[in-house]
Amino acid sequence: MSIRDVVASTPLVDNHAHAVEPLERERITDSFADYFTEGQLSPEHARHTLNYRAVLDLLAEQFGSADEATLLQQRAEVDLASYARTLIDGTNTETILVDDGFPNVALDEFDAYTDADLRPIHRIENVAETLLPASESLASFEDAFVDALEEALDGEFVALKTVIAYRTGLRVRAHDRDAVRRAYDEVCRDWDGRVEHSVFNDYLVHLAAEMAAAYDAPLQFHTGFGDADAHPQFVDPTYLYEFLQAHPSTPVVLLHGGYPYTRAAGYVTATLDNVYLDLSLATPFVQHGVEPLISQALELAPTTKLLYASDAFSVPELYVLAARRFRADLSSVLERLAADGFVTESYAEDVARRILRENAVSLYDL
Amino acid sequence: MSIRDVVASTPLVDNHAHAVEPLERERITDSFADYFTEGQLSPEHARHTLNYRAVLDLLAEQFGSADEATLLQQRAEVDLASYARTLIDGTNTETILVDDGFPNVALDEFDAYTDADLRPIHRIENVAETLLPASESLASFEDAFVDALEEALDGEFVALKTVIAYRTGLRVRAHDRDAVRRAYDEVCRDWDGRVEHSVFNDYLVHLAAEMAAAYDAPLQFHTGFGDADAHPQFVDPTYLYEFLQAHPSTPVVLLHGGYPYTRAAGYVTATLDNVYLDLSLATPFVQHGVEPLISQALELAPTTKLLYASDAFSVPELYVLAARRFRADLSSVLERLAADGFVTESYAEDVARRILRENAVSLYDL
Amino acid sequence: MSIRDVVASTPLVDNHAHAVEPLERERITDSFADYFTEGQLSPEHARHTLNYRAVLDLLAEQFGSADEATLLQQRAEVDLASYARTLIDGTNTETILVDDGFPNVALDEFDAYTDADLRPIHRIENVAETLLPASESLASFEDAFVDALEEALDGEFVALKTVIAYRTGLRVRAHDRDAVRRAYDEVCRDWDGRVEHSVFNDYLVHLAAEMAAAYDAPLQFHTGFGDADAHPQFVDPTYLYEFLQAHPSTPVVLLHGGYPYTRAAGYVTATLDNVYLDLSLATPFVQHGVEPLISQALELAPTTKLLYASDAFSVPELYVLAARRFRADLSSVLERLAADGFVTESYAEDVARRILRENAVSLYDL
Repeated sequence: MSIRDVVASTPLVDNHAHAVEPLERERITDSFADYFTEGQLSPEHARHTLNYRAVLDLLAEQFGSADEATLLQQRAEVDLASYARTLIDGTNTETILVDDGFPNVALDEFDAYTDADLRPIHRIENVAETLLPASESLASFEDAFVDALEEALDGEFVALKTVIAYRTGLRVRAHDRDAVRRAYDEVCRDWDGRVEHSVFNDYLVHLAAEMAAAYDAPLQFHTGFGDADAHPQFVDPTYLYEFLQAHPSTPVVLLHGGYPYTRAAGYVTATLDNVYLDLSLATPFVQHGVEPLISQALELAPTTKLLYASDAFSVPELYVLAARRFRADLSSVLERLAADGFVTESYAEDVARRILRENAVSLYDL
Repeated sequence: MSIRDVVASTPLVDNHAHAVEPLERERITDSFADYFTEGQLSPEHARHTLNYRAVLDLLAEQFGSADEATLLQQRAEVDLASYARTLIDGTNTETILVDDGFPNVALDEFDAYTDADLRPIHRIENVAETLLPASESLASFEDAFVDALEEALDGEFVALKTVIAYRTGLRVRAHDRDAVRRAYDEVCRDWDGRVEHSVFNDYLVHLAAEMAAAYDAPLQFHTGFGDADAHPQFVDPTYLYEFLQAHPSTPVVLLHGGYPYTRAAGYVTATLDNVYLDLSLATPFVQHGVEPLISQALELAPTTKLLYASDAFSVPELYVLAARRFRADLSSVLERLAADGFVTESYAEDVARRILRENAVSLYDL
Repeated sequence: MSIRDVVASTPLVDNHAHAVEPLERERITDSFADYFTEGQLSPEHARHTLNYRAVLDLLAEQFGSADEATLLQQRAEVDLASYARTLIDGTNTETILVDDGFPNVALDEFDAYTDADLRPIHRIENVAETLLPASESLASFEDAFVDALEEALDGEFVALKTVIAYRTGLRVRAHDRDAVRRAYDEVCRDWDGRVEHSVFNDYLVHLAAEMAAAYDAPLQFHTGFGDADAHPQFVDPTYLYEFLQAHPSTPVVLLHGGYPYTRAAGYVTATLDNVYLDLSLATPFVQHGVEPLISQALELAPTTKLLYASDAFSVPELYVLAARRFRADLSSVLERLAADGFVTESYAEDVARRILRENAVSLYDL
């Protein structure tokens, strides 16, 4: 087999994605472009990212070449279950690890949209937000939080996930018990349903890291670009360095290639044994930037530490855009590395199997 | 028409540049290289940037192949008006938005050097520096500053510009009135003709943003590399994030592609609706780096938000280097995107027209 | 001669490397991969960087194609002196500037492993650590430190080197005498053999910069990625900006291309006259990333300010990987620049000679 054949035929383990959800007709006809940007963009701009141009091509492929408005109307009329199955299962994805934090779709509901094996990931901020209103003290909250994570990891959940990058940023620090107690009191006093307190969020992530270490389960971090909530500076994964050093037994996955801090993410991954790097979201959002992204990640990071994911959410098209883009560009990068003598063909094929599937199977013990 | 033909034939709107100025003979024969670096470099180094090598090629094209010293002597002897017209008008530039802050050349004087339509941009730090000595209180200064900006925007000025990146950096914060009052007092007490006070400069920029919003006029920020005054860390446009979020109705243009923070600049542009991205100065200074720059900007930023400019100043050659470099590399990037299936030829041609001209016409209401 | 011929035939001046050292057999058979990563990686990951794959190819070239274990056994059995001579002298390296800080091998011992001219570099933190235990006051320490550096620079040493990036980071600040005195007291009180005190390390580097200026000898800074001691954020050379401005007469070499902050390193180099940029360590560690690294450095930095080095240490293979990689990629970059019209062939050949040899000869007065 050629490198391209191996890349094309290896079943994917998608180590971070979200469920598909039914959408109201107007969401599709009027603002479908919103699903292909992370920004707060008006339609005049959202319709002009290259990622949205890519999905229009996909719709044309599905429905026949037509103008944008017609394609969106046709898209709005699909039977979602069969449409999603055609798209998602067409990617040859074996297993999807599903972030339960968004959208609000149960796993067995998502199951109607794909034949892939679905394995849940627990978003820790949501756990905390569920438990906080009923808690009576930091100690009782902590017990309940730990119990909830234990129950998850004893059960079907294969990993934890944190969105601290969106809340208070990746400069996660250690705080003493008094500071945490004060933070807990402040969070309770100002409770609005959302955990967004620098000290308290840091505390949650440290606690989750200890739980993850105890279960040898990975803790996933959103890093890099994302929606407007995140500060574009504090999504840089180098801010996590002290935290990562403090939890050497916790397998940590830096999601999204830390784009645009991808070389820095590769450097951290190459430096600390417990760190892994996923290239989702940037795949497919940055389109022609995915190939350099993969190439840059391979500059320093061991090939045993890179992971495929889609970070697809809500619409099945994102699964397709991610899988196609990643397979095409991984092929190109590996072919070029082999042609230029950096790796043998055979090693390149091993790398392809690892990144697309095996590294995740081993890391998440699938 | 092919993509390359569209790129070659679309008239440019140069959304940020500076006037040409007459130079003493010795400035040209002895230190012409200074105009092709932003650094504080001795001649032995300044003569060896690739940007300076490019202008030597241009001089050889104009005056016939010859050694450097001869070319510089010939350059020193030109009739500036006709030489500048030949060069600038040879770029097919329809409109130039001219920063009035540097050099000290009036717009109708610059008019002698080009047939392009010239539209002024008002540099706010210069306005403040003119008004401060005569002001008697913060309130009177503020009234005068607001009046001056209103007069400018009621008149011919199409945008405001700030060089806060060179003064106190892009970490622009909000300050309460007491802090601003203290800052005003300190600036007045230590007055040396230059506004460089972290709180006061932040205040000016917030005020300018409000004025710009009221007039729906863009506010341009120097971002990215520049002369030695700027700290290379605090020119990173991600520092502006809170400011940009605080002024959602102010159209903001991040100048110079934020080089080397270009991917981060594209991320900010793709996230907040009011942000636009210009790729000048880096074009042409980084030479073979311009093509990757354009490509990286297109990874996330909508094609409706990218703008051409030269940031040319003082010497007409910079207009030529910028226009040729940008046209050549935009063609290459768009041709590659079309060839690789990321966009159709027709969409690529639309993108070319937008970046070279239409986005600016719309944004600045030309 | 073609560009590639000039690159291939120019003798190298390696402006920053370390001695080769004899290793115990098990270091080679069991953990040879450790020499090809800077990270704290377990063998399962360390064996899968592309840099390690490259050295396996080199071993196969030396010992005949075989499996990894066999190659490592053959490597463990070599006569180091003749093996090292074959490898290092095969790179056509004329002069090696040797950091005396690591490994603990005397220069005349290293001399047995190569015919290259060896010139020592003095690592200032080691000097301080030797002198501190015997010092009785800040003043007496300072006298001894200054004497030691003077003796070195009066003697054979051609440059100073600091590893402050690994200790307290590159945000080097100026401190007043009282603060330094307190820092000295704290360092002495908590003495553990290692100088790692933010104020005190900053002070040492300022003092070294003054000495370097007095002798017109370069001061080398580790910048960019390195072992796990370094914080991946504070190795960014832009943090050095105030320091570099404060010492305009000190020639400073930013080592390792500041990877991944290479464009930023080029920007600093292009801005301040006294700054030079070396591309070692990243060469060869980032493998296929070396070509873009060289290209990015040339975007802004004058061609008179870029320097070749290997940063090889302990094993002779690193000399070979660095020299081959750099020659191959410098050729490719310069050929492309010439083919695309950015430089003439003749200028490209000059650039090759400068980067490989002449810039260092001039800077270090060899």
